[in-house]
Amino acid sequence: MIKAGIIGATGYAGQELVRLLLGHRDVEIVWYGSKSYIDRKYYQVYGNMFQIVENVCLDDNMEALADTVDVIFTATPQGLCASLINEGILNKAKVIDLSADFRLKDVAVYEAWYGIRHQSPRFLQEAVYGLCEINRKDIKHARLVANPGCYTTCSILAFYPLVKEGIIQPDSIIIDAKSGTSGAGRSAKIANLYCEVNENIKAYGVLSHRHTPEIEEQLSYAAGKKLNVIFTPHLVPMNRGILITGYANLAEPVSAEAVRSAYEKYYGAEYFIRLLDPEVYPETRWVEGSNYVDMNFKLDNRTNRIVVMGALDNIGKGAAGQAVQNMNLMFGLPETEGLELVPVFP
Amino acid sequence: MIKAGIIGATGYAGQELVRLLLGHRDVEIVWYGSKSYIDRKYYQVYGNMFQIVENVCLDDNMEALADTVDVIFTATPQGLCASLINEGILNKAKVIDLSADFRLKDVAVYEAWYGIRHQSPRFLQEAVYGLCEINRKDIKHARLVANPGCYTTCSILAFYPLVKEGIIQPDSIIIDAKSGTSGAGRSAKIANLYCEVNENIKAYGVLSHRHTPEIEEQLSYAAGKKLNVIFTPHLVPMNRGILITGYANLAEPVSAEAVRSAYEKYYGAEYFIRLLDPEVYPETRWVEGSNYVDMNFKLDNRTNRIVVMGALDNIGKGAAGQAVQNMNLMFGLPETEGLELVPVFP
Amino acid sequence: MIKAGIIGATGYAGQELVRLLLGHRDVEIVWYGSKSYIDRKYYQVYGNMFQIVENVCLDDNMEALADTVDVIFTATPQGLCASLINEGILNKAKVIDLSADFRLKDVAVYEAWYGIRHQSPRFLQEAVYGLCEINRKDIKHARLVANPGCYTTCSILAFYPLVKEGIIQPDSIIIDAKSGTSGAGRSAKIANLYCEVNENIKAYGVLSHRHTPEIEEQLSYAAGKKLNVIFTPHLVPMNRGILITGYANLAEPVSAEAVRSAYEKYYGAEYFIRLLDPEVYPETRWVEGSNYVDMNFKLDNRTNRIVVMGALDNIGKGAAGQAVQNMNLMFGLPETEGLELVPVFP
Amino acid sequence: MIKAGIIGATGYAGQELVRLLLGHRDVEIVWYGSKSYIDRKYYQVYGNMFQIVENVCLDDNMEALADTVDVIFTATPQGLCASLINEGILNKAKVIDLSADFRLKDVAVYEAWYGIRHQSPRFLQEAVYGLCEINRKDIKHARLVANPGCYTTCSILAFYPLVKEGIIQPDSIIIDAKSGTSGAGRSAKIANLYCEVNENIKAYGVLSHRHTPEIEEQLSYAAGKKLNVIFTPHLVPMNRGILITGYANLAEPVSAEAVRSAYEKYYGAEYFIRLLDPEVYPETRWVEGSNYVDMNFKLDNRTNRIVVMGALDNIGKGAAGQAVQNMNLMFGLPETEGLELVPVFP
Repeated sequence: MIKAGIIGATGYAGQELVRLLLGHRDVEIVWYGSKSYIDRKYYQVYGNMFQIVENVCLDDNMEALADTVDVIFTATPQGLCASLINEGILNKAKVIDLSADFRLKDVAVYEAWYGIRHQSPRFLQEAVYGLCEINRKDIKHARLVANPGCYTTCSILAFYPLVKEGIIQPDSIIIDAKSGTSGAGRSAKIANLYCEVNENIKAYGVLSHRHTPEIEEQLSYAAGKKLNVIFTPHLVPMNRGILITGYANLAEPVSAEAVRSAYEKYYGAEYFIRLLDPEVYPETRWVEGSNYVDMNFKLDNRTNRIVVMGALDNIGKGAAGQAVQNMNLMFGLPETEGLELVPVFP
Repeated sequence: MIKAGIIGATGYAGQELVRLLLGHRDVEIVWYGSKSYIDRKYYQVYGNMFQIVENVCLDDNMEALADTVDVIFTATPQGLCASLINEGILNKAKVIDLSADFRLKDVAVYEAWYGIRHQSPRFLQEAVYGLCEINRKDIKHARLVANPGCYTTCSILAFYPLVKEGIIQPDSIIIDAKSGTSGAGRSAKIANLYCEVNENIKAYGVLSHRHTPEIEEQLSYAAGKKLNVIFTPHLVPMNRGILITGYANLAEPVSAEAVRSAYEKYYGAEYFIRLLDPEVYPETRWVEGSNYVDMNFKLDNRTNRIVVMGALDNIGKGAAGQAVQNMNLMFGLPETEGLELVPVFP
Repeated sequence: MIKAGIIGATGYAGQELVRLLLGHRDVEIVWYGSKSYIDRKYYQVYGNMFQIVENVCLDDNMEALADTVDVIFTATPQGLCASLINEGILNKAKVIDLSADFRLKDVAVYEAWYGIRHQSPRFLQEAVYGLCEINRKDIKHARLVANPGCYTTCSILAFYPLVKEGIIQPDSIIIDAKSGTSGAGRSAKIANLYCEVNENIKAYGVLSHRHTPEIEEQLSYAAGKKLNVIFTPHLVPMNRGILITGYANLAEPVSAEAVRSAYEKYYGAEYFIRLLDPEVYPETRWVEGSNYVDMNFKLDNRTNRIVVMGALDNIGKGAAGQAVQNMNLMFGLPETEGLELVPVFP
Repeated sequence: MIKAGIIGATGYAGQELVRLLLGHRDVEIVWYGSKSYIDRKYYQVYGNMFQIVENVCLDDNMEALADTVDVIFTATPQGLCASLINEGILNKAKVIDLSADFRLKDVAVYEAWYGIRHQSPRFLQEAVYGLCEINRKDIKHARLVANPGCYTTCSILAFYPLVKEGIIQPDSIIIDAKSGTSGAGRSAKIANLYCEVNENIKAYGVLSHRHTPEIEEQLSYAAGKKLNVIFTPHLVPMNRGILITGYANLAEPVSAEAVRSAYEKYYGAEYFIRLLDPEVYPETRWVEGSNYVDMNFKLDNRTNRIVVMGALDNIGKGAAGQAVQNMNLMFGLPETEGLELVPVFP
């Protein structure tokens, strides 16, 4: 039985992690960390957990936690994990960081986009970017995994085969992303009140969203050279789900069959990636509550471009689900364990 | 491995049944019945099932089905099950009917409220009303279970201890119920379009909703005499969930502790019924996707009344979840098998 | 041109008041009071007002305000208006208080339910309860109007003819109310975040909601004797709208025609009260953005009870709309001026 | 008093037209046409109109209608207006067609994208494309106005100054659009049921949506040469509102000030176009219920591109509002009459 501790268990991603781990046969959660709710019963924060979780919330003492558990999940704002982690902790427990602290290899890029000083740059090289379908091999041996962002998981996976195979012009990528509101977190802000989000759609973080450099870094590895993208996230009045609609110029004329083959080459054997039937496009409702990423594309002969679409559950595969998938890899368990969940509809 | 067939697999309750049975280790679904989608892939009707269910939809030939399976679920409009069922079928397969056909013992009441002639009144006495927490013993030996309605499950369970223990005046019960829109089914009606339901709340079926006689019959058994209730359902702009707020006059002054004891007497050992902490009231968000029923009450000294509240997932415990619970009982499996699901939030 | 000042202009009710007054031909808003946003442009708080309102937000100096305007609206939390008001102010400007400060005549009841000391009890007798359809005559001459609550407007109007005409047993009233989320205000609270409210319905303030004594006081006047009610509000995932479903025991058997006549007797000439056709029940979508109250009833012969329903826009007739209606009465304008708005659908 | 008739008065756009015209001081609606609801009271179809509109629905006899009214609005599916219109009608009444029948000058393009034969190509040249801010002069003298589509109004207005001034490369335009569900109309389809739309976002009509050629034609006029665009609409779980997020390559480096000047050159005097403050981006909530189009842009130095955003109410400025604006122009009324409505929030 793997003992798990969660720092930041009372955020939306933290709570989804709890839900998933409770259904995982090889894991026991022994530490529900939450600075805001110390000593309160976890079920008093999330009523769905009543009669399921009896634990009280604990603080975020990572040192103490490392002595107690085999794996630590940090589902906290950027900066926290980097400020707490050290060699001693990593020698005792594996760490899966759901924040952005170890996603970007270049500390200058991190500091520029996040506006804070990185407190543990020495672990940046060791940290493995936990996009399981692409970095599976390295994840298996990692002590520290940087769990990818929600938008980035969807964006990178949708574009990866196209970039890798040279099907598109790398610098032509435009990603128009739409997210449910759980992505905005559970802190009390007027902008996230029901009446402000409901009956509205808006772009935010225009040309400045922090997932931009993360997408760029990973797709640059695939392209074999540095590329830039335009990334525009939008807030949608729904709880869960991310849809990305991406656009790019084709490198040269290509058939739909060839593009389909490229996707199958990389994802044909992937359990969690579903390349939809031709003319069927991703919708967030079909992945809710699951670890699936649905995707598809369409070629535009008129403009010599491709439209790429991907959908996932932002707190599932976009956060907690992928964290569990990473854990499975790191502990030598079947990768899908605890994650073979049928999406919940409606 | 229990072989299961579903007639009406493409309704919302049918689809939830598919989701639950896919996660049930002792069941295999071999028949996805759907008159409207015969020969279409099930996943083309419900995209969440892509790469999970490869079956095509079949018709509603209950005779053929009975030769193939151990249990038949009918998740169809009233009238269908009663028109198809017969002794031969019941000798070959157990039947769990999610429609209203076998819920009311009095055929005259059925025909008055449903406005159709009952085509199999001979099975009415044999049919067991499948409210597991109350009729568990009889369900275990039943060939034919009438799976209770969504509103009725919530209403009866919330009032049962009060009626049974004589805490309230039986004829004073008023139930004000609120349901998510999946309860209205998946047929194309203007009244259920997004723009008609969204940003609206309305009562419907005022004093004429068909769940009324079902609640009355079951609570009459508990009271030991015939009683009437007022039942008013409302349509809420959300997908899933039922909340009932009930009111009744106290038979005589009583303490909160005594009322709490009454609930604990009947439900203290029930896995799926959660009596909430004092001053905590049910909310549909905490039961979504699960088989739980949350409940609580509050005494009003000023008016000598009690307010009773209950919440469940209308297509979970209110339909498909309870059907699986009934199946578990009928086949001698652990009652909670395949149903120990943490509610999905947000 | 009537000069108006609003204290609390940046709450939801305050903003609706701004919208309504901007469309009122005899009013000019000269003071946008908002303690939280002093010196910020009003349109930066509410983007809909861009290029419509150029004013900046001012503080809540009621003394200064009274020198400037003819009418002061206080759309603030309870306690503020009572703490600022005085004889000098009332001699200079009429005051319409949208808070609860002057709604209850009995200061002890106010202090018991609101948990704060009343700072201006001397104005309680003078203040007129601004339910226009019932207190029209007194409102016309008032210096200080207590604008009724949203739930209370709907509840009192729906029950008034029944109580006044002795059709129901006064102590048997149960009101089950449902409100959109704008009623919860625009302050940053986790409970009102989009993901907490969406896909959920819950009761709140069970047997302790502060609109209870307000309903009781007004219906007691109608009954000619003190009565108690049970009032249970619920939070619905929608922006605007209140629906109340009320229940009461009939005093003696009565025909639907007789009940209808009672409603027509009191409301037949009322512009803003719409008694719906028989068998048509109120829905919040049909009153959104307007000053209408829709209502209807149904008799239950089986239980000798009546079900009463009413719907209004909680920040329209339930707050800002009624405040404007009161202003019209107080200034001798046509009562419907600026309020003849067709409800906005969908 | 202008007499108006509406064919298709019971669709969502038709109903909004009714709402707007009821508030217009110079118009009287004398014909509520609706093939589906002939002889039914209009308020029975739209309960908001109770006690406001007493008319019954009539059929779509355009000949008879032309004898009765000064202006005919056709808010019907494509094909109907073209099948009914003739010289005699146009000599008697002005026609504002909210369908696509007269939007595209090239009948072959119409027939290719809409898949039906055009039945009145002889009026194509005469018809004026009713985008008021751009074609104001021609609209004033038109007998037949083709009211633009919802997406197209937003898209064309947002890109017009950029194309006209040569700021962007004309063939690089990508428009990612998001619409509320009223845009899908009021017909009973499973895809538009509440539970299918709620908690979901999806693209539809990918690379095949019929508003594409309309955008292309109008922007081609601005560019002075034929251009192609990529246009991807998405369905958002909300009632009203369209947001477009557009992308284009800059023709050459340009400053934000220069781009802002281009917008001001064309729209500085426009009442209904609001160029937002720098760093403030359009949101649909701020235009709901109004005739405004909010817009803004941001330059991306990293990729030499521009991001353009626009928001409007799809059944307001995107349909009925613009139709009224066209009517005002055609009848020599002040262009804003009946349309100076403050957006309704929340």
